[in-house]
Amino acid sequence: MTRIAVDAMGGDHAPHEIVAGAVWAARDYGVAIELVGKQDRIEQELDKITHEGFMTDKGKGGPKKYRIKIDTSKLDIKITHASEVIEMGEAPGQAIRKKKKSSIVLAVDAVAQGSSDAVVAAGSTGAAMASSLFGLGRLQGIDRPAIAVTLPTIKKPIVVIDGGANSNCTPEMLFQFAVMGATFSKNVLGIEHPRVGVLNIGEEAGKGNELAQATYKLLEEHQEKINFVGNIEGKEIFLSVCDVVVCDGFVGNVALKVTEGTSSMLFRMLKQEFKADIAGKIIGLLAKPFMKRIYTKINYEEFGGALLLGVKGITVISHGRSHAYAIKNAIRVAKYAVESGVNEKIAKFHEEE
Amino acid sequence: MTRIAVDAMGGDHAPHEIVAGAVWAARDYGVAIELVGKQDRIEQELDKITHEGFMTDKGKGGPKKYRIKIDTSKLDIKITHASEVIEMGEAPGQAIRKKKKSSIVLAVDAVAQGSSDAVVAAGSTGAAMASSLFGLGRLQGIDRPAIAVTLPTIKKPIVVIDGGANSNCTPEMLFQFAVMGATFSKNVLGIEHPRVGVLNIGEEAGKGNELAQATYKLLEEHQEKINFVGNIEGKEIFLSVCDVVVCDGFVGNVALKVTEGTSSMLFRMLKQEFKADIAGKIIGLLAKPFMKRIYTKINYEEFGGALLLGVKGITVISHGRSHAYAIKNAIRVAKYAVESGVNEKIAKFHEEE
Repeated sequence: MTRIAVDAMGGDHAPHEIVAGAVWAARDYGVAIELVGKQDRIEQELDKITHEGFMTDKGKGGPKKYRIKIDTSKLDIKITHASEVIEMGEAPGQAIRKKKKSSIVLAVDAVAQGSSDAVVAAGSTGAAMASSLFGLGRLQGIDRPAIAVTLPTIKKPIVVIDGGANSNCTPEMLFQFAVMGATFSKNVLGIEHPRVGVLNIGEEAGKGNELAQATYKLLEEHQEKINFVGNIEGKEIFLSVCDVVVCDGFVGNVALKVTEGTSSMLFRMLKQEFKADIAGKIIGLLAKPFMKRIYTKINYEEFGGALLLGVKGITVISHGRSHAYAIKNAIRVAKYAVESGVNEKIAKFHEEE
Repeated sequence: MTRIAVDAMGGDHAPHEIVAGAVWAARDYGVAIELVGKQDRIEQELDKITHEGFMTDKGKGGPKKYRIKIDTSKLDIKITHASEVIEMGEAPGQAIRKKKKSSIVLAVDAVAQGSSDAVVAAGSTGAAMASSLFGLGRLQGIDRPAIAVTLPTIKKPIVVIDGGANSNCTPEMLFQFAVMGATFSKNVLGIEHPRVGVLNIGEEAGKGNELAQATYKLLEEHQEKINFVGNIEGKEIFLSVCDVVVCDGFVGNVALKVTEGTSSMLFRMLKQEFKADIAGKIIGLLAKPFMKRIYTKINYEEFGGALLLGVKGITVISHGRSHAYAIKNAIRVAKYAVESGVNEKIAKFHEEE
């Protein structure tokens, strides 16, 4: 059985929501779990879930809160004690060297030692990346790991890589991101011959900054191995014109957060508009379930987490604000990634090079 | 009276919509107009507007199409003949050298010669930038002109600079963008002590790529002259946490287009959702006017165009898809910019340096 190590202490709602999400995933997806963190706190949470259950609202877009009670003693859950926790503000590199007994370092170590197959972490993204990089090492042919973020579009999901791991990139790095993103899209999302595009500010090959131009050339030269479809613009991300969007981590992170900001602004504006008069309030009330369904579709909690690709192991990085539902989904992503053998396939691409 | 030169031949709907928008602005805003383009085509359009009028829908979000008839002979409109047109695909630098009698080159020339005070152009952005840069020259203290785009937010409008003029930037350029954006925000949008933020992927000073880090330092050192509020993230752009967002033109253009893409995806998703059943269709019909009002608020046609800042003159760059309503608004922006003396104030900042 695939076992997922979960950093029980990471995230705004740790350990309560994290442990609940892990238990939920163990029940629903038939995965084994290794909870890493303060043993007494975790035991307390498990006990509470068995006897009292936990409240959940299935993410903001789902139905109203309801209680789930799960007998944790019947599931394959083990606890690995970690005496330390890396906090959000700490410098990742320093923190992982100083806090060798922290939950994230030991969760990654569980994968390195083979007791688990993947890590799910909702704490400091920097610490999760740094500990994965140092604890697991890089895959063959990969200079820098990158974050692959799955986004909903009108049709099928799209992968944006790099979502924020590397602010300063070279064309060679972006080429590797393209390979990793395409392998992920094919093997984890099940998209045949994923189309790869470079995020740019115009369609033509000569457009954009030096990095985008050089990356275009590099991908064009390797078209027999990568289904490169050219540049794609920011407004096309959601139009299913490609399956993998390649960019540096700075641009990728800005793009992802602008998406988040735009949708929350639009929903707020719409709510305000409905409040204008009595008729509006009634129509707003009627329209609410429809808006909620959209909100659920685009909600990050559905996708559960982004994958750190390029390390010898699977690390899923969840949103710091994750509740149980998001953690449950992140564990599902981790399980799929492990079972699809995405890493072996990335390494194989470079062996054949 | 302020006179605005309008490239009558630029844009997807030229010259019809462009001439209509110019006439409309002349009537509503009391500006004089210099229409630059093929004389016979322009005369034809003016004649049609006087005798038959033009159809408009006030931008996509406004009321249904209706006809406006304006007697153009009563307005201060002059025509400057231009025998050539620069097409969308042409390399801007080459095109402006080769086509010296093109409408955009002559429209800019009208400002350089003093017969008009500003240019409005909906054709090739590259050609508008190149002809403005070469025809008008740079303002004192400015190395590279930048595009200032005004966006709606929950509260007041925000300026994003650079919106796409410069893909490869230095920290010094971004510092100048900050000065120009703040001067624009204060003098054209009327925002006192505009707060300037650097678009970045985290709040802390050490976050982001080398460019963002160095820009942060530079702005911090000049806090007595610039109201610098630190880094802002993509999701905060619409939260009114600052008034001017500074970034390189690559990141800025991606961010703007992602905003466009996200909102059009959400509206499409919502429409689809409403189509699910009869009840949905009825609720969708009722909710439509509310959605339209939002659409109008965020529609680029309302803002009419982006300002090219940093040249000795005012150039407003409109969307290629502009209809009359957008052109009318672009002319309003041009008029405000001229009358506010934004350029003199940017030059003054650097004199005092």
